[in-house]
Amino acid sequence: MSDVDLADELLAGSRRALGRGITLAETGGEAARALLSAIYPHTGKAHIVGVTGAPGAGKSTLVNALTHIWRDAGRSVAVLAVDPTSPFTGGALLGDRIRMQSHGGDAGVFIRSMASRGRLGGIARATGDAVALFDAAGFAVVIVETVGAGQGEVEIASAAHTTLVIEVPGMGDDVQSIKAGILEIADVFVVNKADREGADATVRLLRAMLHLGEAPAGGWTPPVIPVVALRDQGIAEVAVAAEQHLAHMRASGLLAARQRARAAYELRLALQEGALERARARVGASGWEALVDAVAARTTDPYTAAAGLLAAE
Amino acid sequence: MSDVDLADELLAGSRRALGRGITLAETGGEAARALLSAIYPHTGKAHIVGVTGAPGAGKSTLVNALTHIWRDAGRSVAVLAVDPTSPFTGGALLGDRIRMQSHGGDAGVFIRSMASRGRLGGIARATGDAVALFDAAGFAVVIVETVGAGQGEVEIASAAHTTLVIEVPGMGDDVQSIKAGILEIADVFVVNKADREGADATVRLLRAMLHLGEAPAGGWTPPVIPVVALRDQGIAEVAVAAEQHLAHMRASGLLAARQRARAAYELRLALQEGALERARARVGASGWEALVDAVAARTTDPYTAAAGLLAAE
Repeated sequence: MSDVDLADELLAGSRRALGRGITLAETGGEAARALLSAIYPHTGKAHIVGVTGAPGAGKSTLVNALTHIWRDAGRSVAVLAVDPTSPFTGGALLGDRIRMQSHGGDAGVFIRSMASRGRLGGIARATGDAVALFDAAGFAVVIVETVGAGQGEVEIASAAHTTLVIEVPGMGDDVQSIKAGILEIADVFVVNKADREGADATVRLLRAMLHLGEAPAGGWTPPVIPVVALRDQGIAEVAVAAEQHLAHMRASGLLAARQRARAAYELRLALQEGALERARARVGASGWEALVDAVAARTTDPYTAAAGLLAAE
Repeated sequence: MSDVDLADELLAGSRRALGRGITLAETGGEAARALLSAIYPHTGKAHIVGVTGAPGAGKSTLVNALTHIWRDAGRSVAVLAVDPTSPFTGGALLGDRIRMQSHGGDAGVFIRSMASRGRLGGIARATGDAVALFDAAGFAVVIVETVGAGQGEVEIASAAHTTLVIEVPGMGDDVQSIKAGILEIADVFVVNKADREGADATVRLLRAMLHLGEAPAGGWTPPVIPVVALRDQGIAEVAVAAEQHLAHMRASGLLAARQRARAAYELRLALQEGALERARARVGASGWEALVDAVAARTTDPYTAAAGLLAAE
């Protein structure tokens, strides 16, 4: 299967081509760029939903339940589980297989995990590319699930149309644990494990903090929805809230603004990755290593070395 | 104060120059690069200690207690609290002021918070630069405190000589909540709030997981140290473990390897940032915005647009 065939087959709905395309996107390089260039005109139709929360908050259970609801409504769902906490081990494929069993044989569901390889910007670039591939392949909803806190959240904010933030009870009295950035990233708050003690306090605290903050951009106040994901309680409300948010974004013009921000972000990433590849190709592996040695020995500094590389273009 | 003066005064120990230098590093641009180039030959002496953990785990309390211990031993300590969870609000200056009070008037302590501005790679670059400034200014220990999970941790692993990971009891029976990547990043595990129920189980689980994993690189098995940071219990053991880890890294040659990895990382960052600045400067603000519009409208794609920018160099 050549790269051109791969794009055509992916656009025609081949799940095998999609799987290969995502692997290619993870690997990066020229072939990945050619594939992405070919499919990019066909993107922009999916509802991209980010789901973030701390480990153990129940992200995958919620995503699974949401997937069932959207499937029942006849919408195809792709799930990208990004695991930046395994930069050294790679992959979470066992998890994928376990998750897929719940949707066994349903061609309208595609679940894929992606682990950072510890490359700078690698996880962000590969995530964005995988979302584009799902979008081009015709999935109505693309869910991007990431572990909470850190740069990852910023990236979700750049890429997702609607960001769901999952909290759990027990932090209801601890303002520090509900981080300021989270309030500004969330479009919908989900308080999972709402049958546990302290759930009401967490819901109240989140609502209070939301009202303390600045007036919401474009008039959207993030709803705070208590759920018990394991028992499918409250999930339909979350799905409706996500859809309402998208409709609001579209009507207010914010969707176009967010898509433009995402385009700018992807252009920056592509430029930075391309510049790094060019510089390394030009000086060769040994030339690059010699520069790294010089920086490590402090006979030069990163900025002077980088300026030298760029001036030689 | 010119930039040259700023470097000289910073190297001579001026705290005012240091503060201005870090602000410059946060801003980025040509003046920041000139300062970093000037001070870079004077770096490489500090012990860089990363501290990471989930919100509410007690990072700042632990860092405060560690600072007191190292100050009592006559070592100067700089603390950089990186808050990537506030990409939109910026700064955490109130927190700095509260923290400083504990070390009021001690010129051997410097505490600074830094918030991501949501720029790609910006927080990583500014963090690395601030560490270099602290190092050049002569601080014996530079503590970099970040919220756990996500790319941030990977960056700590690249930059710190010794990484302390803080866990709290209550996740003792939840293997999912102790993430695989954490095990590979931690040089020292700190179980804070060890007077709480479940602390023993968390300590035991961490030790068991550490022994289940691969043989540790270079023969270092991360110690798991229960502490009560609020009551200064166990903090001295953490300080000793961090120092032993540095000694081990130095003796085993791993320190040189880690410093080389950091040099490579900084060179990549500087190159990517420089390439982005050059491209934007060349096409101008309106040219750049037109390209972003074209990507958003999908009349081109990020890779084709980036390749065009790079080919025009």
